[in-house]
Amino acid sequence: MAIVIDGIGELTTNDPEIGRLTDAAVVLDGGRIAWVGPSEAAPAADERVDVEGRAALPGWVDSHTHLVFAGDRTSEFAARMAGKPYTAGGIGVTVEATRAASDEQLAANLRWHAGEALSQGTTCLETKTGYGLSVVDEVRSARIAAEVVDEVTFLGAHVVPPGTEPESYVDLVCGEMMDATADLVRWVDVFCEQGAFDEAQSERVLCAAAARGLGIRVHGNQLGRGPGVQLAVRHGAASVDHCTYLTGDDVAALADSDTVATLLPACDLSTRQPLAPARRLLDAGAVVALASNANPGSSYTTSMAFCIATAVLQMGMSVEEAVWAATAGGARALRRDDVGVLRPGARADLQVLNAPSVTHLAYRPGVPLIWAVWRGGIHPMFNYGPSAFFTR
Amino acid sequence: MAIVIDGIGELTTNDPEIGRLTDAAVVLDGGRIAWVGPSEAAPAADERVDVEGRAALPGWVDSHTHLVFAGDRTSEFAARMAGKPYTAGGIGVTVEATRAASDEQLAANLRWHAGEALSQGTTCLETKTGYGLSVVDEVRSARIAAEVVDEVTFLGAHVVPPGTEPESYVDLVCGEMMDATADLVRWVDVFCEQGAFDEAQSERVLCAAAARGLGIRVHGNQLGRGPGVQLAVRHGAASVDHCTYLTGDDVAALADSDTVATLLPACDLSTRQPLAPARRLLDAGAVVALASNANPGSSYTTSMAFCIATAVLQMGMSVEEAVWAATAGGARALRRDDVGVLRPGARADLQVLNAPSVTHLAYRPGVPLIWAVWRGGIHPMFNYGPSAFFTR
Ligand SMILES: [Zn+2]
Ligand SMILES: [Zn+2]
Repeated sequence: MAIVIDGIGELTTNDPEIGRLTDAAVVLDGGRIAWVGPSEAAPAADERVDVEGRAALPGWVDSHTHLVFAGDRTSEFAARMAGKPYTAGGIGVTVEATRAASDEQLAANLRWHAGEALSQGTTCLETKTGYGLSVVDEVRSARIAAEVVDEVTFLGAHVVPPGTEPESYVDLVCGEMMDATADLVRWVDVFCEQGAFDEAQSERVLCAAAARGLGIRVHGNQLGRGPGVQLAVRHGAASVDHCTYLTGDDVAALADSDTVATLLPACDLSTRQPLAPARRLLDAGAVVALASNANPGSSYTTSMAFCIATAVLQMGMSVEEAVWAATAGGARALRRDDVGVLRPGARADLQVLNAPSVTHLAYRPGVPLIWAVWRGGIHPMFNYGPSAFFTR
Repeated sequence: MAIVIDGIGELTTNDPEIGRLTDAAVVLDGGRIAWVGPSEAAPAADERVDVEGRAALPGWVDSHTHLVFAGDRTSEFAARMAGKPYTAGGIGVTVEATRAASDEQLAANLRWHAGEALSQGTTCLETKTGYGLSVVDEVRSARIAAEVVDEVTFLGAHVVPPGTEPESYVDLVCGEMMDATADLVRWVDVFCEQGAFDEAQSERVLCAAAARGLGIRVHGNQLGRGPGVQLAVRHGAASVDHCTYLTGDDVAALADSDTVATLLPACDLSTRQPLAPARRLLDAGAVVALASNANPGSSYTTSMAFCIATAVLQMGMSVEEAVWAATAGGARALRRDDVGVLRPGARADLQVLNAPSVTHLAYRPGVPLIWAVWRGGIHPMFNYGPSAFFTR
């Protein structure tokens, strides 16, 4: 059944040939975009939705989250806001709670957060394992993630679990653990940082992934300058994420590469780090994506609109750059060309704002601006099921 | 008809004797709070709502907005994000659009924004005139505001309208214009700033207001250090708003006074100013409120949650301080004791979050966390009518 979404006051397509249209229409059919163009030329369809001048754009592509978890770290957050520094150490709290949770609890918690994200316009969602850190718990996390989200990343190399010798843990990640998860995931990631994995250990993880034909991504340069960015570029990673602390050489390496610099502004704010140098990266010619890094420790938000508002108000990105980074940029970071863009053949993932322009995403920070969302041509009802918070 | 809201996992009351409760209930009756206490002691009522462990707190008291306006300043915002500095000059654009709008358009636009605010938890709303700047247009603005919001402020002294001599405009504001609006408003405000009104002019406005028995408030120290704060304190203003640039003497004067320092973080961010020195004010003992400053020029948001997240993540306020400032602090700035607090006799204004704790307001920035709102005991449906954006 074809649906025409008509009366779009401003249509952002991210397609270089179609560009940005005013007074436009989009036709969805069979879960795909069938047609994009001016309202007056729109073909007939079975159903017509008039959005009365509102702005429409591709759904968000959130290319970096950690949503297979249980528990909550409210008190750690409050302590951090009272001056305690963020370290990778808190991850252990979530690992313990995740291991203790049932499959049903983990799946319900993931569905809750994925639904919350969808209700805010996120139509393509990546998520990572990394709170299991044993073969059985990492496989379980990957299996649950694969049932719910678009893209699954194996992050056994998140931190070294307590009581484990680092080199033998890397052996496990690169061997048995990766073998057991490889069929469930498309990507392998490594947290290359002080307190997590050093350059040599990270390199072992990336090589093991590449040897199995898996795509690679890196967490790098979050808490200080380090080897993460250069490592990612050298190995042709699809993306290096955080990029909060960059040298001039790091910026130049990114600009000369196909590796996307995925910035996580909500994480920078929530850990009281400086905001990542978006303007320097863009001016150098790097490809920049924005993602939420949704996780219960360092960045517990699913709001891509908050990331965009922060990028525009505080990181020197234009609205157009920020919107592109949160849609097409995320798609590039996931090496997908069927999402983050509105053109015939792409997945029918789009959002309509309760605003005449995408500029309102930064002009009206914090205001929930979603008016409607379609994902794969489906207009969901936003009942995202029971939450782990409220099971009494 | 009495309603008991039960199963509240965390109840913030702002009442010093009741404090913060866990596993609590609140009874609403006849638009007022009838009872607050532990769930197991809750009296019977006609209706029971189980919030299943969610957090509840007073509705937001947004003590500073400018919502009697028409038009939009999207392109000015985009230019500012591209590096153009903010000045008071852009106000003239809104004045022209506001004068040109019909009463019905202005009222519909105000209702839209008030409804948008209510849907985000704002149950007590102040708004100002100040986009009329002629006797007839200021009276019209005050009349429309008085029909919709809780508290109305006359801000004839917003800027000097183009083509008008400043001193004779101040004569008009202090004379005929104030006479004509006095019965419609409770407050008089003045924009004491470079490009608006100087100290002597501002003082004349405050004295004229006091002579008529109207309450006074001041916009001060927004774009640089200036006389606004000291003037407000000297005249016993209920509040001085912005406070972005303060000397040590300004902080000390506020701490020694009953004048509330109302901070507007969304405005600071949207105009690329530094964030106001909340921590210095609190440490000195000043009373701090948070407000949105919702207006189409310098701060086009109705999201008090965004203000709280910014205050906690970036201004050194604790969650408890920020939540108090956005509820009881706003009430103090409006000299009201019936809102911003949950105790028997107070107005039945409360919100329930889709979260177990108020900490989530900062821990989960940008995520719409409203689960339910009651205002005067009424649970609204959030259909806030037609918007000026989408009249085709
Ligand atoms: Zn991450
Ligand atoms: Zn103002």
